[in-house]
Amino acid sequence: MRTLKLTLAYDGTAYAGWQRQQNGLAIQQVIEEALAPMTTRGGAEARRDAEGRRGVPTIAGAGRTDAGVHALGQVASVHVEFDYAPSAVQRALNIRLPADIRVVGVVDATPGFHAQYHARGKTYRYRIATMPVQSPFDRWFVWHAPMPRDLDAMRRAAALCVGTHDFASFQGRGTSVTGTVRTLARCDVREHAGEITVEVEGDGFLRHMVRIIVGTLSEIGAGVRSVDSMAAMIEARDRSSAGLTAPASGLTLLSVRY
Amino acid sequence: MRTLKLTLAYDGTAYAGWQRQQNGLAIQQVIEEALAPMTTRGGAEARRDAEGRRGVPTIAGAGRTDAGVHALGQVASVHVEFDYAPSAVQRALNIRLPADIRVVGVVDATPGFHAQYHARGKTYRYRIATMPVQSPFDRWFVWHAPMPRDLDAMRRAAALCVGTHDFASFQGRGTSVTGTVRTLARCDVREHAGEITVEVEGDGFLRHMVRIIVGTLSEIGAGVRSVDSMAAMIEARDRSSAGLTAPASGLTLLSVRY
Repeated sequence: MRTLKLTLAYDGTAYAGWQRQQNGLAIQQVIEEALAPMTTRGGAEARRDAEGRRGVPTIAGAGRTDAGVHALGQVASVHVEFDYAPSAVQRALNIRLPADIRVVGVVDATPGFHAQYHARGKTYRYRIATMPVQSPFDRWFVWHAPMPRDLDAMRRAAALCVGTHDFASFQGRGTSVTGTVRTLARCDVREHAGEITVEVEGDGFLRHMVRIIVGTLSEIGAGVRSVDSMAAMIEARDRSSAGLTAPASGLTLLSVRY
Repeated sequence: MRTLKLTLAYDGTAYAGWQRQQNGLAIQQVIEEALAPMTTRGGAEARRDAEGRRGVPTIAGAGRTDAGVHALGQVASVHVEFDYAPSAVQRALNIRLPADIRVVGVVDATPGFHAQYHARGKTYRYRIATMPVQSPFDRWFVWHAPMPRDLDAMRRAAALCVGTHDFASFQGRGTSVTGTVRTLARCDVREHAGEITVEVEGDGFLRHMVRIIVGTLSEIGAGVRSVDSMAAMIEARDRSSAGLTAPASGLTLLSVRY
């Protein structure tokens, strides 16, 4: 069976997140339904959709982005039985998909490739707008939090997150994940033109992990918490010890590494 | 009477343009109604709004941007009788205004200052996205026209527009303006990362003038028209001789000069 690897960019503002769900329209669902007319018959991966139509393929996404979270380089895999060229699949999908979801690349992958299970790392970027007046053009893509921050304190605290740690304190409630050890390769804090960006690269991320790290770094930058408190928060392995969960709008999945 | 000068940035996507009108919500109206609670009594400039409420001030905008056109530096003037500090007016407006309209500056102007009549020049920028797959983040702010362009041809044709000309060929139909001579100080065509920008500075612009110039330059860049045809189009003083009107979404009013 043929496996395609899709690279996707989307503005997540209008969606209930990546993953299919009962309440709200998910990006996964929109892409699966755009792909459905190309699946000529129900293959092993095909199933009926909500309206009982056959042939809707299941696609696997590398990262389960939350409602309102964006992507520049989300990766998805799908098993297909058709022979259309990758470029034809890309064109057909982009014609059918709404303008806030774009397929930026399609290639043939090794058969059996799975975008989620085979991912070796992901990079996320978070944007904090610190200027007093928010740009009307960025309002869905940043967290507008116009207060002064100590960049040096944020950078020193971010450095404490890098490496292999148990990130249980930085996991949103309501998940059943038990293995909470992750390795961050970097956590870079930059400032440019009234905007702070936090770029995080790691082998995997718990639910809300980037947003809680950013919320905590923001509190450290604002002087609400000390730089040293970051080590204690990691040590605590308890969500209540860490800072706020920064809003979804500021977060973008930049790329996935295999 | 006190005159305030407001500098405004807005995402024009959701609006029927700058100017108040019967059908559709105009940016002017939204700002006037946000200002109304500060006008303690109906001054010379105050009038009843659509619902018959008194005290809605009339603001004058430098450029009557069309529906879907954006602004980074629109300028508006308004006569007021209150004593609030400019910074307090800015804060109060930004609290009341929706997030797609932002007041980026308020200053006291010379009494009698009028943003439209006293404007000596304006600068507009137009963005053409030429990459095959459009960014989902820019979809309201560019014209997606993914075909190759001859940049050099566009630049040479743009240079023919610079100077003082009768731009009657570049005026949208349905206007009663009779004086159609305008002076362009520059018309710069640049390309960067899959995007062509056309930046135009002039003493004034006719209805749809920038969009028709850009649509014509795009046709010249695509080889549909020759570079030399630009001179003939200007000479013709007839709308039907020029090219298409580029979509509103790509256009932004950058700044106004006084």
